[in-house]
Amino acid sequence: MTLDDLPTPCLVLDQAILSRNIRRMARIAGRQGVPLRPHMKTAKSVEVARLALEGQPGGITVSTLAEAEYFNAHGITDILYAVAIAPAKLAEIGRLASAGAAMTLVTDDAEVAGLLGGHPAVKRVLIEIDSGEGRSGIAPQDGLLLDVAARLGGRLAGVLSHAGHSYGGRSEAELTRIACLERDAAVTAATHLRDAGYAAPVVSIGSSPTATHADHLAGVTELRAGVFMFGDLFQAEIGTHGIEDIAMTVLTTVIGRRPGRLVIDAGAIALSKDRSTAAVTTDYGYGLVLDNLGRRTFAPATVGHAYQEHGVIARDETGAPDLPVGTRLRIAPNHACLTAAAHDRYFVVDGAEMVVATWTRVNGW
Amino acid sequence: MTLDDLPTPCLVLDQAILSRNIRRMARIAGRQGVPLRPHMKTAKSVEVARLALEGQPGGITVSTLAEAEYFNAHGITDILYAVAIAPAKLAEIGRLASAGAAMTLVTDDAEVAGLLGGHPAVKRVLIEIDSGEGRSGIAPQDGLLLDVAARLGGRLAGVLSHAGHSYGGRSEAELTRIACLERDAAVTAATHLRDAGYAAPVVSIGSSPTATHADHLAGVTELRAGVFMFGDLFQAEIGTHGIEDIAMTVLTTVIGRRPGRLVIDAGAIALSKDRSTAAVTTDYGYGLVLDNLGRRTFAPATVGHAYQEHGVIARDETGAPDLPVGTRLRIAPNHACLTAAAHDRYFVVDGAEMVVATWTRVNGW
Repeated sequence: MTLDDLPTPCLVLDQAILSRNIRRMARIAGRQGVPLRPHMKTAKSVEVARLALEGQPGGITVSTLAEAEYFNAHGITDILYAVAIAPAKLAEIGRLASAGAAMTLVTDDAEVAGLLGGHPAVKRVLIEIDSGEGRSGIAPQDGLLLDVAARLGGRLAGVLSHAGHSYGGRSEAELTRIACLERDAAVTAATHLRDAGYAAPVVSIGSSPTATHADHLAGVTELRAGVFMFGDLFQAEIGTHGIEDIAMTVLTTVIGRRPGRLVIDAGAIALSKDRSTAAVTTDYGYGLVLDNLGRRTFAPATVGHAYQEHGVIARDETGAPDLPVGTRLRIAPNHACLTAAAHDRYFVVDGAEMVVATWTRVNGW
Repeated sequence: MTLDDLPTPCLVLDQAILSRNIRRMARIAGRQGVPLRPHMKTAKSVEVARLALEGQPGGITVSTLAEAEYFNAHGITDILYAVAIAPAKLAEIGRLASAGAAMTLVTDDAEVAGLLGGHPAVKRVLIEIDSGEGRSGIAPQDGLLLDVAARLGGRLAGVLSHAGHSYGGRSEAELTRIACLERDAAVTAATHLRDAGYAAPVVSIGSSPTATHADHLAGVTELRAGVFMFGDLFQAEIGTHGIEDIAMTVLTTVIGRRPGRLVIDAGAIALSKDRSTAAVTTDYGYGLVLDNLGRRTFAPATVGHAYQEHGVIARDETGAPDLPVGTRLRIAPNHACLTAAAHDRYFVVDGAEMVVATWTRVNGW
């Protein structure tokens, strides 16, 4: 099977780039002396998880319980569910535990901590620390930290922070500063807990930009980066990787050739409506237009409009060539996690036209 | 099963509102004397299709070949695939025809028309007409129209137009004007074809706003509205329906209660990153916060930020109350088609807490 045999729109995953990205992050983590607990929220695929776990302890991070169930069923049992747990989800945690999963949960709430501390299905809980993003988590100096710890009791396993505000970083120096804030917040919180008599062995931080930019990670015990595996235009713009490191693209077909524009069959569902590159130096619209083999032959042509199943490439504005209906293109995404979410599989290539494998992914909740 | 038993995030579909919306559009179409060929791109569910087809001829419109396959397998065989066909998709059209589907295709391209005109699996083709949106289609006065018709030969069944620019309408008068442009473009093109000796019996137009606002539809033979079934915040803002007519919402759970904000488990995947209401009078962020039963108890609270699996409701800015972790809310979406696309089923209610049915939907391509 070659690229020409694939139904469009679909996801194409370049194995060579994927492996290079994974090796690069493993080197960064190795240099920092911190193991990876790869975040599988982007790839949601066991084949990708196995590649990302090479040389690592074996635990993963997930963003949904559907991912937890899927990875556990595929033999990856050490699972951190990195979204704060709601009480109604504990029944599912119980089912996962019965099915062999070793789940670690997260909370930043005193009432929930009280429930988790006495729940038979709950083994390990991390307290979420706010390192400055202002989304979830407890500030390290907040008295609530010790209250939550007391309610968790023997279930307390440590702390977790996610510097989501690193996505707002626009320079190497700013990203390094945010990475240090994330590390310091997590390490400080863990120190407070240990000073109060808790073991708190786990200090989990993560995001691909902070993992890439931290000056040191002393005191951190695991890194939860995820999007680095596939890369995307936004991460390239903020310097997490180069634009040539984008491993996942959307294969599409030209379905209309009208004056001054091309219409493609990758629209708002296939690409997502993520417009994160609107906030960085280069605005890629709904994605960068590549040729059938993923090369930047037509750069800087972008997808300017995204309707449900139609994408429009304005030729006049972007310099895209006039191409006949039926031409196949690939679109590099703004945000790989959201683009991938509309698709149920990856068609895997190795820098060329042959499709060497099909890997499924788990969606939903 | 009640709402409290559902895993979150998930889609809740209110049957009473859905039926009311469908009856209302059937009345509008009936008054215009034009039958509906309901567009199933929003609902993608056979149960919804059956409701939408009550009192109508029985044909539907789809936006993907996966929808065509699904509806055909469920006995709805008269299917208009309203996205311009690419040559590589004709093999799938052949398989659909063998499986009993009576497919109608669409093109605006001379080369493709040449292929379709001689293809054994192709029975009926509509020429796409641009009524001013500037996306796909041939202007009614463009000489290309007769060239495409000649190449289609006996496969030519008529014309199709979609006034997508009706979504840019901001007043009753503007929407009526666009609806008339859509009708006039399609009818004019059909007249040109008939003057040239083609039968061109089908004059298909559609979009929920134009169906709702056209002053008359003389010469039109079918209406392809779709989003009206569920409704959404954007359609409410442009006057397609009222805000109380939104039938589909996302059920979510509060997973974090931090100073000045609530964190919910419906984020960018569960809600979509569609920000269409940023362009209308009321910007609803990533959705309007409703209570567990879908009532506007907390209005005007909105979801201000959407991360992959986290949504954030800023309490200070929106007046949302302080609610404990575990509280269930419902979020009305900006754009129902894109929000629904991340979910594989609807939990159907009837204005209350009981879940009366579960309806699956077909995603992907």
